[in-house]
This record gives sequence, structure tokens and C-alpha cells, in this order.
Amino acid sequence: MKIEEKYLEFAKNIAYKAGKIMLKYFKTNNGASYKIDQTIVTKADTEINDYLIKQVKKVFPTHSVDGEEDQFGNSNYIWVCDPVDGTAMYARHIPTAVFSLALVVHGKPIVGVVYDPFTNNLYSAIKGKGAYQNNKKIKVNDIDFNDIRSVSNVDIMPKEQYYNISGPIKELIEKSYCVSLGSVIRAGMCVANGEFNLALFPGTKHKNCDIAAVKVIVEEAGGKVTNLFGDEQRYDQDIDGAIISNGKVHDEITDLVNKYSIKSF
Amino acid sequence: MKIEEKYLEFAKNIAYKAGKIMLKYFKTNNGASYKIDQTIVTKADTEINDYLIKQVKKVFPTHSVDGEEDQFGNSNYIWVCDPVDGTAMYARHIPTAVFSLALVVHGKPIVGVVYDPFTNNLYSAIKGKGAYQNNKKIKVNDIDFNDIRSVSNVDIMPKEQYYNISGPIKELIEKSYCVSLGSVIRAGMCVANGEFNLALFPGTKHKNCDIAAVKVIVEEAGGKVTNLFGDEQRYDQDIDGAIISNGKVHDEITDLVNKYSIKSF
Repeated sequence: MKIEEKYLEFAKNIAYKAGKIMLKYFKTNNGASYKIDQTIVTKADTEINDYLIKQVKKVFPTHSVDGEEDQFGNSNYIWVCDPVDGTAMYARHIPTAVFSLALVVHGKPIVGVVYDPFTNNLYSAIKGKGAYQNNKKIKVNDIDFNDIRSVSNVDIMPKEQYYNISGPIKELIEKSYCVSLGSVIRAGMCVANGEFNLALFPGTKHKNCDIAAVKVIVEEAGGKVTNLFGDEQRYDQDIDGAIISNGKVHDEITDLVNKYSIKSF
Repeated sequence: MKIEEKYLEFAKNIAYKAGKIMLKYFKTNNGASYKIDQTIVTKADTEINDYLIKQVKKVFPTHSVDGEEDQFGNSNYIWVCDPVDGTAMYARHIPTAVFSLALVVHGKPIVGVVYDPFTNNLYSAIKGKGAYQNNKKIKVNDIDFNDIRSVSNVDIMPKEQYYNISGPIKELIEKSYCVSLGSVIRAGMCVANGEFNLALFPGTKHKNCDIAAVKVIVEEAGGKVTNLFGDEQRYDQDIDGAIISNGKVHDEITDLVNKYSIKSF
């Protein structure tokens, strides 16, 4: 077994364990008259992050971990993790949150997994080896905004976003059916498997290099992932938002974003 | 048992059966490299609608049915049904679609149920008797757009919408965290149980009185449901879009919509 395959197998095992933890807390109080339960987010985040760190220390002791909640190590091999992406939805018991993990080497993800425990779909890729949803190879679609099947995901979070993209969104909502699932990583997987043609992410004020897995999975599926302005970026430090696309609509969106002088809030 | 309670029990039984049908087709091809599967929508829609008509004929033979797919009867008691609301998401295997059913008398819903089979939550109300999620009473929140917890749902479908609301949306996305779950009825239930403060619906070009259940459930939870311009409307004929809110933000959104001269496409 090649070393990248070992990394992938390791990442998949973490993902399935993380999914179990996500489901466990998600089901807490199910059926109750719950409203917004931030405590289940904290519990799931912490438990997943602790498990990841323990496993990396055991299996790849020379590697580092960069989780949303906790970090350790000083290696060029960094496991970048978002234990629960889509926390606002998770806290509201809406099943669109996912787990995400990538191994990033010198700023580039070489292995990535995303797990959606609610529909039991595991998305994965090794750099150069294609992208998979469970055991089937996946491919981005070939749809532009004129197509009735066009779906774009837009993240709209005026109080938290890093860049103000209301200008580009205003133009986009006049031509594409748009949804917003509350998790950019979940939306990215919809781009990877051909369900969506675009996910537009303005970045957040807090740390967010955690879409590293999206970068390798979507590009291995034939799509394109850049920062908000169409440029490449590192995935072991704060990112400058993201355009995640099927490739076909990428330049159109890059032009749209660059047309506006977007300012950080 | 009062007659309204019999109607509700009837509606709940239909909802649980519909949920089983939704899950059955949703799981078709799960794990495969599926893309957009419109056939599962058609199958689920048809099977649920047929079942509903059969049951109404059997249990309330003098009543009418107004399903998205099929209709019968000419009574003042109309069972208004959307077998699968959120079909674009359902076809993409994203678990945010719901079943919806209301008994509408002279244009007003007196009983409503919405069922989310993916998280097993049944929302219901009888006019004047409060709103419930499974067996717990629910209540809208008291949150305005300044609150960090504010979540609004916006339906963005430029090719299908009845009114162009990109102007109001442009203003809204600069002040409220917005999501778009792809089902206005699912979003309406998030308003009813206090998870969201608003769902804004521009209407569709095809028939859409099927948010009748939302009207009674959200209002019994203490919220407000009007057409897009803040006025009351009938729920046994095409609707003029909808503002579904916690009540607190209703006037602000009505003003916002009325500020723009919104034209049908």
C-alpha cells in the first residue's frame, strides 16, 4: 500500500468515527421543542477534535494537527480538520453539517475526506487519483447559469464574513437558482458530484483554512477551487474566501467578484 | 373526539405514510455516483398523491383534494397537499425536503401538518389550539436582525419565481445571516419552532397554494404569515408569495418589499 493510501484510510476511519459523534449529539433532544442548541456543537467539536489529535499522535507522531478547536505540532505534514462544518445548522437540528479532514503538505492538500453522516456519504480524494463518493468515482457537471439545472450555493453571513460579497450575490441571484445549505464544505461536495455548479464563500473572520479537503476533492473531480479573486492560495493558513466551481463558470464568477471593490468588514 | 382532532389524526397518518415513501425513493441509488435524479421526485410525488386521494375518498368522501399532482372534488373542505416540497434538493439527495398537508375551509387552513422524515419531526396545528413539534408545544422566537442568532431563509429562483425580489434580498443579506434550504415549507417550520426568524418566498410560476399548512402552524406558534406585500390571502388558490415570520420582523420586511416595485417576470 502506498503511503497516500494509508493516509486516506486513516482519514476515512477518523471520518466515520466523527460521524458517529455528530449523530450522537444531533439526536440529543430530538423531538423536543428545541430551539438553538449551541451546546451540542461544542460537545461534538471537542470530542471529534480530541479523538483526531489522539489518533494522529499514535499513528503519525511526527505530523501536526490544525483543528478548528485545537492544534499541535510543527511539521510540514498538517492534518487540517473542521470537526463540524455548518454549526449554525447543526445547532438547529438541520442535517446539512459535515465533517472534513485533509492532509496538507507545504500548503497543498494531498489527501482529503468529507463525511456526511446524515446520508452516509463519504467523499474522498488523493491528489492525482480522482475523487470518490463512497466507492464510486465522481465528476463535476458541465452546466452554466443559462441551464435550468444550474444550482449555486452562496454563504451569506453579514456579521461574520471576511469579505462583503453582496454585490456579486445580487447579480448571481438574478441568473442562477441559489441555495445556501449553511455548510460551504457540504456545498463543495455537491459541486464535486455534479449536483451544483458553484459554491461561493466570502470567508469568515475566524480561522478558516479548513476547506482544504474541498480543494483536493473538487479538483480531482474535474472542478476548480481558488480564493475569492481567482488566485491559488495555501490551505495551512487563513484563506481569502473561495470560489468552488465546476470549472466552466469559474472565470465568470472571478470577473464578477473582481468587478466590485470588495472590502473586508 | 372533536372533529378537528379527527382531521388532525387523519393528516398525521397520511404524513407518516408519505414520509416512508419519501425515504424509500430517497435511498434509491444512495452511495452511487448520482447527480440529479428527477425520476425519484416524480415517483414519490405520484405515490403520495395517489395514497392521499384514496384515503380522503375513503374517510372523508365529501371532501376535495388539491394536490400538486392531482385534484378531485368540488367541496368547501379542501385537503391541500404538497407531497414533496423542496424537490430540487430531494432530487440531489439533500435531506431538507418535507411533506405538507392542510385542510382548508373557505380559503383558511384549519388543520395543518408538515413532516420531515429525515429527522423524524412532525409539525402540526389545529386553528386555535397551538402548534406542536412531535408532542411538544412550539413557539416562534423574539429575534430581530440585529441579533447574532438571526437566521432568515430566502428562496432564490430567478427562472421560476413569480415576483422578482432580488432588491429586497440585496438589503436583507447585508443585515441578516441568510440560508436557503430549498424548501419554503421546511424553512417555515424553522420559523415556527424558533430556529429562524423569517422565511421569504417569491412564489412560483406553477401552482403554489400548498403552503397552507405553514399558515396555520406558524400562526399557532405565535408568528405571522401573509402574502409578499403584507396582506392576508386565500390558501385554496394561487398565492402571491409569502412572508413567514416570527411577527417581530414582519412589518420591516413588508416595508422592504413594498419599497421596490416588484414585477412578475
